[in-house]
Amino acid sequence: MVASIEDVARRAGVSIATVSRALRGLPDVATGTRDRVLTAAADLNYVASPFAARLASGRTTTVGLVVPFVNRWFFAEVIDTAETALRRAGFDLLLYNLGDREGRHRFFDVMPMRKRVDGVLVASLVLDDFEFDALTALNRPVGLLGIEREGFLSARIDDIAAARSAVDHLIGQGHQRIALIGGDTDDPMRFTPPLHRRDGYRDALEAAGLEADPALERLGFFTVEGGAEAARYLLARPDPPTAIFAESDEMAYGALREARRSGLRIPDDLAVIGFDDQPLSELMDLTTVRQPVADQALDVTTRLLALISETEDALNRDPAVVLPTELVLRASTEGDADPL
Amino acid sequence: MVASIEDVARRAGVSIATVSRALRGLPDVATGTRDRVLTAAADLNYVASPFAARLASGRTTTVGLVVPFVNRWFFAEVIDTAETALRRAGFDLLLYNLGDREGRHRFFDVMPMRKRVDGVLVASLVLDDFEFDALTALNRPVGLLGIEREGFLSARIDDIAAARSAVDHLIGQGHQRIALIGGDTDDPMRFTPPLHRRDGYRDALEAAGLEADPALERLGFFTVEGGAEAARYLLARPDPPTAIFAESDEMAYGALREARRSGLRIPDDLAVIGFDDQPLSELMDLTTVRQPVADQALDVTTRLLALISETEDALNRDPAVVLPTELVLRASTEGDADPL
Repeated sequence: MVASIEDVARRAGVSIATVSRALRGLPDVATGTRDRVLTAAADLNYVASPFAARLASGRTTTVGLVVPFVNRWFFAEVIDTAETALRRAGFDLLLYNLGDREGRHRFFDVMPMRKRVDGVLVASLVLDDFEFDALTALNRPVGLLGIEREGFLSARIDDIAAARSAVDHLIGQGHQRIALIGGDTDDPMRFTPPLHRRDGYRDALEAAGLEADPALERLGFFTVEGGAEAARYLLARPDPPTAIFAESDEMAYGALREARRSGLRIPDDLAVIGFDDQPLSELMDLTTVRQPVADQALDVTTRLLALISETEDALNRDPAVVLPTELVLRASTEGDADPL
Repeated sequence: MVASIEDVARRAGVSIATVSRALRGLPDVATGTRDRVLTAAADLNYVASPFAARLASGRTTTVGLVVPFVNRWFFAEVIDTAETALRRAGFDLLLYNLGDREGRHRFFDVMPMRKRVDGVLVASLVLDDFEFDALTALNRPVGLLGIEREGFLSARIDDIAAARSAVDHLIGQGHQRIALIGGDTDDPMRFTPPLHRRDGYRDALEAAGLEADPALERLGFFTVEGGAEAARYLLARPDPPTAIFAESDEMAYGALREARRSGLRIPDDLAVIGFDDQPLSELMDLTTVRQPVADQALDVTTRLLALISETEDALNRDPAVVLPTELVLRASTEGDADPL
């Protein structure tokens, strides 16, 4: 026989409403009471039915998260933070990794999220009008992470200003030949950071009256190996750079490694700055632009949940949030220690 | 007016069945035909309804993936690989990150996957009987990644043998004081690798007639900083180790960094071996145990999908797959180059 919620309430000696609240993890249930309910439910092998609750409410208690990549530090942090915030609110996460151009086309054509989600989060993708229309046609709240668009919730950093702060620092140290190792700005996935970080790099050079040398801009594809290859090319030139700004820490790790293998002293012969401040970067003594990834993800997820629950008018209040970045100075541009 | 599938078929000049096959991405539709259908669907703003298809078939076309962590390299690779394989088969991924002990209890008590999934993947969690019963009660195929259990599909590596191969290598080089930097074997998440890799370490010492020194086993919690702290403690002892086996590459990076800051030469003063072979490890010149993470995830996901589709009797054929690992020798245990 299948145990009912009434059976659980009777065994735990509490009301049915309390069982429901305890099992849904709502905060206003005393710890002792919650434990008694969970024990009673476990003893009776009671299985709550979120499906029935969902049907009754007309909700799916699910949020779709659309990402261009999964196995990069930034996106793993976003998925982790969003999933945790959603789970605490009783929501499930449907993960959509677009993968490649074909996968992206199919996703927005077929829109598998339809009728499956109460809201959507989109991370670091420049969407075209067709894609925005497809999202809007879901008639569900949408939160954007890393990009901004009129009428949508968003949380992001200012990639242009952040990149500029890194290059300004190098210019302030007297560097005149500063290279860029970046992502592919023609990438069909239209992932935003490469576009904006390159703009920030060029803006800084222009503001300082330094001529941009196209030969000093190399693609590193956001991987360690790509960063190493780009650095190998740059350092083998007849007029090599004295400093490198990499658009991600991983590409900077590759550049540091390549420089060390070439016998260069860091930062005397070559200064290196990254972007992200991954946990490894402190150990690497890498100067880098720290961005608050978890804060961005938590901010937009929390406001999306507020919109879904209609507990506040989150959209009208302050839809577009820009969180600060910070240039973290370490030995790859400063001081005596030879990093890596 | 909302466009119907008949409208799309008429506009594209193909049958309704072809529209359906093209929109679902099935392989036996010519590329030109598929393009014509997608164009017609886009022109008419036609939105396919996977929900209706699911209701008709009694399926959810969704697989739940249960993980103890998201933002560690191993799990990001697993999520990426599983999501890609599922998407290609027309399935969505519901991601469940257990987070902590309380989250784990609630997950298996409430079982939010109920009626939402056609199958379940569980990664690197030692499940207790209550948890296995909760999974079995879903009455859906289950695939295990990193663990094995009678009657369940699984793909894993042999963590004990893999760890032993690393420590055997150090013993073969003449090391007698070999330290272990590992994960917490009393962790309430009961994450499997720390248990098995420690067993492999101890087995290797015992087989070589070396006495295990409990002071040489330190926790590094699978983080770079944890590995660095453990190495700091070990290297400050009156009788420091001459070699370290770390249960993950990240902990090994921390150990290498700490050794270098202490002025030790690698591998002459201290040899270091990691576990995983992350992309960064080649650049770090880290000797490590390479495990095929994507292969494990792809193998179990593919067989789970076969079970769901009942296209073959995957369970009876060979339910428990063990994939090989490989000790990759680099300068952190061999040769002259001083890594990191």
